[in-house]
Amino acid sequence: MAEFVDRVDVEARKRALKVFREKFMQILRQIERGENPTLVLPKRTLQNTIYDERRRLLLLGPEKLRRSFFDLHEARKFMQTLLMARIIYEALERDEYPTIRDLYYRGKHTIVVQGLDGRRYEENTWDEQRESDSVIRDIEVLTGLLREEMLILSKEKGKVVGYMKIRSGNDVIDLSKMGHGAYAIEPTPDLIEFIDVDAEYVLVIEKDAVFQQLHRIGFWRKHKVILITSAGQPDRATRRFVRRLSEELKLPVYVLTDADPYGWYIYSVFKIGSITLSYESERLATPDAKFLGVSMTDIFGYGSKKPYLSEQERRNFIIRATDKDIKRAQELMNYHWFRTPKWKVELDIFLKKRAKLEIEALTSKGLRFLADRYIPEKIQTGDWID
Amino acid sequence: MAEFVDRVDVEARKRALKVFREKFMQILRQIERGENPTLVLPKRTLQNTIYDERRRLLLLGPEKLRRSFFDLHEARKFMQTLLMARIIYEALERDEYPTIRDLYYRGKHTIVVQGLDGRRYEENTWDEQRESDSVIRDIEVLTGLLREEMLILSKEKGKVVGYMKIRSGNDVIDLSKMGHGAYAIEPTPDLIEFIDVDAEYVLVIEKDAVFQQLHRIGFWRKHKVILITSAGQPDRATRRFVRRLSEELKLPVYVLTDADPYGWYIYSVFKIGSITLSYESERLATPDAKFLGVSMTDIFGYGSKKPYLSEQERRNFIIRATDKDIKRAQELMNYHWFRTPKWKVELDIFLKKRAKLEIEALTSKGLRFLADRYIPEKIQTGDWID
Repeated sequence: MAEFVDRVDVEARKRALKVFREKFMQILRQIERGENPTLVLPKRTLQNTIYDERRRLLLLGPEKLRRSFFDLHEARKFMQTLLMARIIYEALERDEYPTIRDLYYRGKHTIVVQGLDGRRYEENTWDEQRESDSVIRDIEVLTGLLREEMLILSKEKGKVVGYMKIRSGNDVIDLSKMGHGAYAIEPTPDLIEFIDVDAEYVLVIEKDAVFQQLHRIGFWRKHKVILITSAGQPDRATRRFVRRLSEELKLPVYVLTDADPYGWYIYSVFKIGSITLSYESERLATPDAKFLGVSMTDIFGYGSKKPYLSEQERRNFIIRATDKDIKRAQELMNYHWFRTPKWKVELDIFLKKRAKLEIEALTSKGLRFLADRYIPEKIQTGDWID
Repeated sequence: MAEFVDRVDVEARKRALKVFREKFMQILRQIERGENPTLVLPKRTLQNTIYDERRRLLLLGPEKLRRSFFDLHEARKFMQTLLMARIIYEALERDEYPTIRDLYYRGKHTIVVQGLDGRRYEENTWDEQRESDSVIRDIEVLTGLLREEMLILSKEKGKVVGYMKIRSGNDVIDLSKMGHGAYAIEPTPDLIEFIDVDAEYVLVIEKDAVFQQLHRIGFWRKHKVILITSAGQPDRATRRFVRRLSEELKLPVYVLTDADPYGWYIYSVFKIGSITLSYESERLATPDAKFLGVSMTDIFGYGSKKPYLSEQERRNFIIRATDKDIKRAQELMNYHWFRTPKWKVELDIFLKKRAKLEIEALTSKGLRFLADRYIPEKIQTGDWID
C-alpha cells in the first residue's frame, strides 16, 4: 500500500532512522575499539526529576545511567534495550506503524542457552508489557525522540472543533466544518500543520459530554474558541496538540474540569506533566495553561467573590469527598505548582468542606448559564488559577 | 446563540415535543374525567425480553406496566416519571441539549411535606443517577422515542473514515479527507444524512490503536472499507451508526475483536443488543453483523482449516484465560445466538485450551499480515461467524 503513504511520514521515518543509526554506530565503534559496549542515558528516577521554576516544567536532571553489556546486573537491560531499538528500527524501515503493545509482542520470546555447566537455561526477553514499555521509555531518553516521532501509534481520545484549518497527511481539514461530530486528533500531532487559525483562546474540557453540549450550541463559533476535550485523563497526543496551540499560536489555554482532586490532576498533567514521565514534559506540557474551574470559590465564594451556586443548589449538587479524594488532595499539596496562594485557598476549602462538584451540576442550571455567563465571565475577569 | 442552531435539530425537537404533548394530554384527560392518572408502558424486565429468532433481535414482549398516581406502591415512580418528562420537555422547548447526568441534577431535590399527623416529612426526588436513568428508560419506552431523539447528548467514542460523505448539522463532511485523524461520530446519528458512499463493506474494530494502524497504511482506501472503531464496548451512537450503514446502505458489517469473551460480548452488543436494554435493540442492533475474528480456529486451526499462528507464535502470544473469562464464556453459551455450530466450536476450543489472544498479536506479525492477508482472506473465503 506504498501508494497511500504520505510525505510527512516518509520524512519522519528518515529523521528517526538517522538518529537510531548514529546510536548503533556508537556501539559498533565501542566494540571495534574492544571496549565494553555501553549505553549512557539520563536516569528516569524521581530523584533525578527536577521542577524547573522558571520554565515551570518537570525535567530530567543531569544524572546519567550507564548500561553495559559485560555487567551481570546490567546485561539483561542492555540486551532488552538493543532488542527493542532493533525492532523499532526495523518497523521504521518497513513502513510499519507499531503500537507499544505490538512492540511487546514482537520482542517477546524465550532465549534458550546451554550453560557452561552443560545445563539448559531459559530466559524470556520480557514477561509483561510493563517491562517492554519501560524499555521504550529508555529508548526515548536515549535517542531524544518521542515515541510518536518513531511512528509508534496509540489509541487517541482527544477531539477538537474550531475556526482552524490543519494539514494532516495529504489532507487539509477545516475544523469548523465537522457538523455535530468532531475531529479526532491523530496519534502523531507533531506532523500536523496549522494553516489558518481564527481563535481567541483554547478551552480544554475534561468531559466529552460537556464538550458535545458546548459544541452543539455553537459556543466556539460565538466566542471564537478552539474547543477540545481530553475525554478524561489526557493522552499524549492531546497534550502535545494543546502545547503546540499554546506555544506556536500563542493562544491562551484554559482547562475546565470537575471540582475534585481528579480534575485538578488532569489540569496538572496538561500544565506540568506527569511525575513518572517527566522526560516527556519538555514537549508535552503546557506551562501557560490556566485552571478555569470549577473552583471551590465558584461553589462557596471567597472574600468579596460571590458563589455561582445558591445554598439550595449546593445542597442538591455537592457530592461528599471520599477518603481517597482527601488523600489525593493531600498528595497534590506536595507539588510545587499547587503551593501558590490561590491553590492553597482551593485545597483548604476542599479539605474543610470535604465537598466536590461535577461540571454537569452547572450545565443542569441551564447550558446557557455555562456558555453565556460562567465561562465568558471567568475569562473576562481573570477568575482562573495559573 | 439561536443563529447557530441548525434545521435538523429544530425539526427533531418539534417531533419529540409533539409526542410528549400527546402523552401529557392523555393524563390531563384522565384527570378531567376524574380517573386515577395512569401511565401504561411496556415492562422492561428480563421476563418480558424476547429473542425474535426471525429478526434476530432482542425485543420487549407484550407485557405492560400500569403506573398510577393513587397507588401507594406506584405513586413515587409515577411522579418521578412525570417530573423527568417535564424536565425533558422543557429542555426541548428551550433549545437545550442535556445529558443524562444533567437530567439527574436538574430533577434532584428534596420535597418537604407536612403530614396529616402534623409532622414534617422529607422525600428526595431521586438519590442516585441509577434511579433517574431508569426513569429516562421508562420515558423512552413510554414515548417510543430514543433519548437521542429527545436531543439528550452523551459522550461518544466512535470514529470513522472511508469513502463516504455525510451531512451532519449544516456541514457536508468528506470522511475520506480526515488526514491521519478521524471523524468522531456525533451523539445523534439519526440526524446524519449519507450522501455519497463508495464502499464494499464496513469493518468495525474493537481497538482504537488497531484502527489507527489500519487507517494509517491506507487499508480502507485499498479495499474500499468504511473503517470504524468502537474504542472498546460500543456506545449507543456507534451502534446506531453501524446499524444504519447495514440497513440503509446494505453494506456487509464485519466485527474484529480480541479473541476472548470480552471481544465476543462486544460483537454480541453490536449484533443483538444488550439484554438489560432490549428495547433499544430494535433501533441500535445490527442483526446482519458478522464476527470476522480473531477466532479460536484462527489460532488453533480446525479440521482442514490451518491456523494463522505457528506453534512458536502461540507460545509467545497466547494469554491464559482467567476464571472470570471462563465464567463469562459460560454465560455467553446461554444466549440463543451463541448456540450455533460455529460458536459451539469456538467456545469448546476456548474452554478446553483456556487460551485467549489479543489482536495486537497479529499486528506484531507485521501490519501487512493483518491488512494484506488475514482480513481480506477471511472475508473472501467467508471465514467468519454469523
